[in-house]
Amino acid sequence: MISARNQFKGQVKTVKLGTVMAEVVVQVGDLEVVAAITRASAENLKLKPGDVVTVLVKATEVMIAKE
Amino acid sequence: MISARNQFKGQVKTVKLGTVMAEVVVQVGDLEVVAAITRASAENLKLKPGDVVTVLVKATEVMIAKE
Amino acid sequence: MISARNQFKGQVKTVKLGTVMAEVVVQVGDLEVVAAITRASAENLKLKPGDVVTVLVKATEVMIAKE
Amino acid sequence: MISARNQFKGQVKTVKLGTVMAEVVVQVGDLEVVAAITRASAENLKLKPGDVVTVLVKATEVMIAKE
Amino acid sequence: MISARNQFKGQVKTVKLGTVMAEVVVQVGDLEVVAAITRASAENLKLKPGDVVTVLVKATEVMIAKE
Amino acid sequence: MISARNQFKGQVKTVKLGTVMAEVVVQVGDLEVVAAITRASAENLKLKPGDVVTVLVKATEVMIAKE
Repeated sequence: MISARNQFKGQVKTVKLGTVMAEVVVQVGDLEVVAAITRASAENLKLKPGDVVTVLVKATEVMIAKE
Repeated sequence: MISARNQFKGQVKTVKLGTVMAEVVVQVGDLEVVAAITRASAENLKLKPGDVVTVLVKATEVMIAKE
Repeated sequence: MISARNQFKGQVKTVKLGTVMAEVVVQVGDLEVVAAITRASAENLKLKPGDVVTVLVKATEVMIAKE
Repeated sequence: MISARNQFKGQVKTVKLGTVMAEVVVQVGDLEVVAAITRASAENLKLKPGDVVTVLVKATEVMIAKE
Repeated sequence: MISARNQFKGQVKTVKLGTVMAEVVVQVGDLEVVAAITRASAENLKLKPGDVVTVLVKATEVMIAKE
Repeated sequence: MISARNQFKGQVKTVKLGTVMAEVVVQVGDLEVVAAITRASAENLKLKPGDVVTVLVKATEVMIAKE
């Protein structure tokens, strides 16, 4: 159990690999969540489209906008 | 238009105010998203339960877990 | 209106595109502010030198040094 | 010399102490920069109004908005 | 398995609870690692001195200084 | 003196340069710490294997997991 307050189940849609970083798009219900992680992490997790994953975000990283 | 890749519409459920920080829980569809922002931000936005808001998260702050 | 406490008007000086990430330098008055955002964000915003933009930083991301 | 790309000289305007966190407002030229750091850090640095300090922000924490 | 590149085993030394946030000090070998998480997370995990835990830090949050 | 609560001495093991970002692995005692910083920062610091450095992490960026 990890302290990050936001943890949502989803499915990997796309993985784009750069030299150092990777961009992973995860479908979470109706939402698309985009993660920029290191390429080595994406490789360690062997992330590929269709994988069932959990996206995690620490509460201190979430902002709120109101019109 | 802001560069943060993750922007989701929701509705404020609860606002808890500390001296410096505030915790805001936002209902986004089926998901509960928790934000820790400064109390002054919560007051500037006059956040209260029922408010329609957008939660924003920069892609570099999102992690992925896979079993 | 967004909860990020630091929001400063400026003008894009340079945009460097990598595969996944992009580095954007923004002139804010006398200061040069450097942002590392995803390449897709830079493309979505069609960022180019001369653009008038706002740089945003969440208060929880700011550190302080004192001699 | 530290890797954080954004480092700006300023002067502390206000320090608000909570139990765990502290909010420090720093005047940087015309700009007010707000930092949320731990109370213990504010105490370790003995931060008080008038102190000459440097605010630091990692480039990966900076977002950009464009109208 | 989570994408955060830095994961270190340790033991909780102290937990300080504020209204919204909590400060947790973890002994990791010779090092003391300090985490500021939400109070609700500290309570969800029932963190107390002596607990065996893992501290996690995303690589994009690590800075480097060199003299 | 900088407000970041976590500051650990170590030695650079590897530096991998991408177009925008760089991955730096630092040996801190028994631990390997991974940092994703901008390539320009790695170049400004002239980081190379063997360099004695300090890794820094803000307390708000540290998470805790407990089984």
